Amino acid sequence: MIELEFFFDFASQYSYLAATQIEAVAARAGATVRWRPMVLGAVFKATGNDMPARVAAKAAYMVRDVDRWAKRYGVPFRMNSHWPMPTVNAERLCLVADEQGLAAPFALVTFAATWAEDRDINQPAELARLAEAVGLDAKAALERAQAPEIKDRLRANTDEAVARGAFGAPAIFVGDQLFWGNDRLHFVEEALAAAAAR
Amino acid sequence: MIELEFFFDFASQYSYLAATQIEAVAARAGATVRWRPMVLGAVFKATGNDMPARVAAKAAYMVRDVDRWAKRYGVPFRMNSHWPMPTVNAERLCLVADEQGLAAPFALVTFAATWAEDRDINQPAELARLAEAVGLDAKAALERAQAPEIKDRLRANTDEAVARGAFGAPAIFVGDQLFWGNDRLHFVEEALAAAAAR
Repeated sequence: MIELEFFFDFASQYSYLAATQIEAVAARAGATVRWRPMVLGAVFKATGNDMPARVAAKAAYMVRDVDRWAKRYGVPFRMNSHWPMPTVNAERLCLVADEQGLAAPFALVTFAATWAEDRDINQPAELARLAEAVGLDAKAALERAQAPEIKDRLRANTDEAVARGAFGAPAIFVGDQLFWGNDRLHFVEEALAAAAAR
Repeated sequence: MIELEFFFDFASQYSYLAATQIEAVAARAGATVRWRPMVLGAVFKATGNDMPARVAAKAAYMVRDVDRWAKRYGVPFRMNSHWPMPTVNAERLCLVADEQGLAAPFALVTFAATWAEDRDINQPAELARLAEAVGLDAKAALERAQAPEIKDRLRANTDEAVARGAFGAPAIFVGDQLFWGNDRLHFVEEALAAAAAR
């Protein structure tokens, strides 16, 4: 089975856009998705990159651009009034969901909460709601999310993404090939098809 | 007649990629292309943006990414061993060609020289060759390229692009709508179709 690795941060609008499409992209190629949360701020720091929104003209453009993509995909999008909120706790909780085989549904409901429903995904009550939405025991899951091995795993995801060449989000890997952004999903599909043909 | 404005710098690989497609994109929509050279370094300075290649991981990725696009378009691409060479003289010469209605062919041969043929487009002999390739009198054109009004026109293009929201290249305008990058040409086509329907 071919595996596509999807490194993302909930704070990233382009990660949301890609997330809405990635399972279908993989399914069309007979591949599976490994959902790998990372900390985008740490990726920027490690690579010397900047968040794109630091440039005012780019930030203004991005809002319109993300909206164009959302319309193209037929998915909802609204800027989040809490953004940029910390996303590290939601990402740790995604790794807890992953221990139960629930990373994909957890990521999808959390992306929707962030970029369609204007939720503050750093609030404990919201995190509990998201955990419950995918069938987790909220209290146990939130407690587990603070375990040292979960924190380490999020750091390890981030370090691995950087070591493999990522400098932004989403960072999508097919083997050692990196693809950056939802706007490269057609290249991801080609790489999956090539991998399937080998 | 609907006009698409294509702001570019010869130093930009993504401008090259877009340039290879832009006349066909416009033609499919019954639109025309206005080729508008600008100085990308001045755009970066004015907007507080950075050249993407400043981040090492991004620079490494871009070489592969541009190569993927070139293969997709079926156009040649090789990194230029003289890059980043000054491109301001070639851009002034493009404005001279524009005075003769030859901006498009001049831009296309100059992009090919830069990103397919490894030429140093800041060398006077190469600039003369490019002028001749589109039927200009090389000596007169190179002299004209240093005229104050040509230099002013290049600065004015750059200032106008920034004033209208550009922060990188290529910057493509359909009316007041900005599209950044060859990877947004499908949105450009949609905007042209919408403009034609009005």
